[in-house]
Amino acid sequence: MKNKKIIIIGGGVIGLGIGWQLAKAGAAVTIHERGQVGRGASWAAGGMLGPIAEAHIDELDLLKLSNQSLARYPEWVDELESEAEMSIGYRAEGTLIIGIEPDDTYQLRHAYTLYQDLGLNVEWLSGQAAREIEGALSPYVTAAIRCETDHQVDNRLMVQALLHAYQLRGGMLHQHSSVERIVIENGTATGVQTADGFQGADVCILAAGCWSAQISGLPETMIPPVRPVKGQMLALQMREGIMISNVIRTVKARYPMPVYLVPRTDGRLVIGATTEELGFDTDLIVGGIYELLHGAFEAVPAIYKLPLIETWTGLRPGSSDNAPILGKTPIENLIYATGHYRNGILLTPITAYEISTLVRTGEVSEIIAPFHLDRF
Amino acid sequence: MKNKKIIIIGGGVIGLGIGWQLAKAGAAVTIHERGQVGRGASWAAGGMLGPIAEAHIDELDLLKLSNQSLARYPEWVDELESEAEMSIGYRAEGTLIIGIEPDDTYQLRHAYTLYQDLGLNVEWLSGQAAREIEGALSPYVTAAIRCETDHQVDNRLMVQALLHAYQLRGGMLHQHSSVERIVIENGTATGVQTADGFQGADVCILAAGCWSAQISGLPETMIPPVRPVKGQMLALQMREGIMISNVIRTVKARYPMPVYLVPRTDGRLVIGATTEELGFDTDLIVGGIYELLHGAFEAVPAIYKLPLIETWTGLRPGSSDNAPILGKTPIENLIYATGHYRNGILLTPITAYEISTLVRTGEVSEIIAPFHLDRF
Repeated sequence: MKNKKIIIIGGGVIGLGIGWQLAKAGAAVTIHERGQVGRGASWAAGGMLGPIAEAHIDELDLLKLSNQSLARYPEWVDELESEAEMSIGYRAEGTLIIGIEPDDTYQLRHAYTLYQDLGLNVEWLSGQAAREIEGALSPYVTAAIRCETDHQVDNRLMVQALLHAYQLRGGMLHQHSSVERIVIENGTATGVQTADGFQGADVCILAAGCWSAQISGLPETMIPPVRPVKGQMLALQMREGIMISNVIRTVKARYPMPVYLVPRTDGRLVIGATTEELGFDTDLIVGGIYELLHGAFEAVPAIYKLPLIETWTGLRPGSSDNAPILGKTPIENLIYATGHYRNGILLTPITAYEISTLVRTGEVSEIIAPFHLDRF
Repeated sequence: MKNKKIIIIGGGVIGLGIGWQLAKAGAAVTIHERGQVGRGASWAAGGMLGPIAEAHIDELDLLKLSNQSLARYPEWVDELESEAEMSIGYRAEGTLIIGIEPDDTYQLRHAYTLYQDLGLNVEWLSGQAAREIEGALSPYVTAAIRCETDHQVDNRLMVQALLHAYQLRGGMLHQHSSVERIVIENGTATGVQTADGFQGADVCILAAGCWSAQISGLPETMIPPVRPVKGQMLALQMREGIMISNVIRTVKARYPMPVYLVPRTDGRLVIGATTEELGFDTDLIVGGIYELLHGAFEAVPAIYKLPLIETWTGLRPGSSDNAPILGKTPIENLIYATGHYRNGILLTPITAYEISTLVRTGEVSEIIAPFHLDRF
C-alpha cells in the first residue's frame, strides 16, 4: 500500500472510516468534503445500532450485513477509542420497541413473530415488565419487544474520533472542496476534478452520501441511485428522575408517527425522526417537530418537563432498495461506498473494514458482494 | 436640563426610551445594563399593542394608561423612525380574537360584552366573516372579536432604533455593568455602586425590569414588588399562500392554552406565550413548545407546513397587581419605571414621555399618579 494514492469523495463516517483504515495500512489518502467534515447525515443521525428494530422481511441481505457490522462494533470501538483517545459513547443497554394502543400491540406481535422466525435475539415483555426496565415509560404501554443486542453510539463523537484517528495516521483532508467530476480515461478512473484542478489518484472511492448522484463524469448507468431523504430531529436534556438508559422505539399502527428516543451518556435524549421525500430541502417544519414531540410524549410522558436543547434536520442517503452500494464498479479503480440510508452509523465498521480490504487486496468478500452497483 | 446627570438602571425599551427623551432634552444620561442592551423582555416580547385584548375588568386604570400609550404610538413611531432612520415595523392591521370550540365562543361573548360596556372599539364577527379577513384561519373558528385599534410593532427593531436614537443624542451606555447598589444618603439618592465604583447622579431611574428587586441599598418597604414571569415563544417563517396580516389571539375555555400569532413585516410569525412562575429559569421546555404549536395549529392549521426558525424564552417583569410602577418614590431623586409585565412594549411611549417630563419638570402627571409605588 505504500505510496498508493487514494482519493475519497465525502468526509462523513463512511469516508473517514475507510480513509482511516487505509491510512493506517500506509496509503496516501486524501478526502475531499464538499462542506464541513462529518456534518451531513453522520452528524444528524440518531446513532442507533439496531439491525433488529430496522429489520424488514424484504431486506434479508441487509439484515445479515447489519448483524455482521454490529458484531464488529466492540472491536471497532476499542480500536477507534484507543487511537483517538476519546470515548465515542457506545452504549449496550439495548432497545425496547413498545406498543401503546391495542393496534400497536397487534403490529408488535407480528414483528415479534418475524424476528423469531429470523432467529433474532428478542424477548416479549408485558407493559409492566417493560416499565420495570424503564420506569419512565407511559402507563399506557401495553407490550414491548426487548432487543438486548440493538445498541447505540454517539455518532457526533464518532465523527470527531474518526477525524482525529484519520489525521493521526497521516490522512489529508480538504473541506469545502467539492469534487465536480470523476475523471475516467479508457474505462479507468484516474482522479477527480475540483476547483483547484485535476487531482490524480490510483483509486477513487465515492462516499458522498446523498450527494453521490450529483458528481459528473460517470456514464449514465453508473450514477448511483441515491437520493436525499429528509429527517427532522430534536434533543432534550434528561434530568434527575427521568434518566432513560435503553433506546426506546415506538410502533404506531395509526397516528402519530413512530419515533425513537436515544439516551446519550452525556444526558442528551435524541428524538427522531420524520421521513420525508423533499429533495435537498432541510427546513425544520412545525408539523415535524409537533409530531415528534407528540409521539415521544405518548411513550414517555415525563419528557413534557424536559428542556428542548436542539432541533435539526438531516438528509439520509437513500438508495432505491434501501441497501448500501458497496464495492467495485465497471470502472477500474473506482469504488462505491454510498447509499447507507438509515443504517450508515451501524454499517460504518463493516464498510470501513471491507472496503479497505478490497482496496488493499483487490479481492471482493462475500459479505459485500450482494451490494454491488450491478444489482440494479 | 443642561449638565443634569441622570443614571438609568436597565437598558431595555423602558430605560432606552426614557434615556433617549432625556438626552434629547439636554441631560447627561448614562445607562447601566447588567447584560446586553435590550436583550431581556424587550427582545423576547411579542410586540403586541393590545390594550383591548389585554383588558381585564379589575385593571381599569391600566386599561386607561394602555389606551393613552397606544394613542401616542403614531407620534412615537414618527419621532423614533425619523431620528433613528429605520423602520420599527409598526403595523396597524388590528387584532382578531378568535374562538374555536363552543365554550370558547361563550367566553368570547362575555369578553365582547365587557369591551362594549367599557366603550372600546370592537366588532363581533362570525367565523365566516373572520375568515374573510384572514383566509388562513381554521374552518373551526366559530366567532371572533375584531379590535381594529390593537396594533403591533417589531420590538427587536424598536430596541435597535432606540439604542441608535439614544446614542445619537449623546446618551452613554455601559453594557455588562451591573448596578450592585443604589446609594442613598439622608433620604436622597446620590448615585449607584457598580463594579467600577461609585457613580454619582442627580437623578437615578430604576428601569431594571424583573431584576429591579435585586438591587440592594433600598429600604425594605421600597423594594419594588417585581418578579420574573417566564414566557416561552417561537417564530415561524410565513410563506406564499399563508401570509397573515392581523394579530390573531385565541381564547380558550379549556385545553390547549390560549396563544397569539403576530405576523411581522419581514415574514416572521411570532407565536407566544406560556406564563410560568418559575423564578429566573429560562429553559425552553418541551411542554411549552408543544402547547404553543398545538394552540397555533388549531387557530391556523396551515402553520403545520411552515419552517420553525427560532425558539426562545423571556422573563416578564410582573408586578404584584400586573400594573407598572411609575414615578416618584419616598427617596428624593429616585424614580421608578419598572414592572410593566405583559405590556412593556405597549407602555413604552407613555412611560418614556411621562417619566422624562417628570424628571424635567418635577411635576407628577395625573396619568401616572395611580401607578406610584405607594399604592402597595
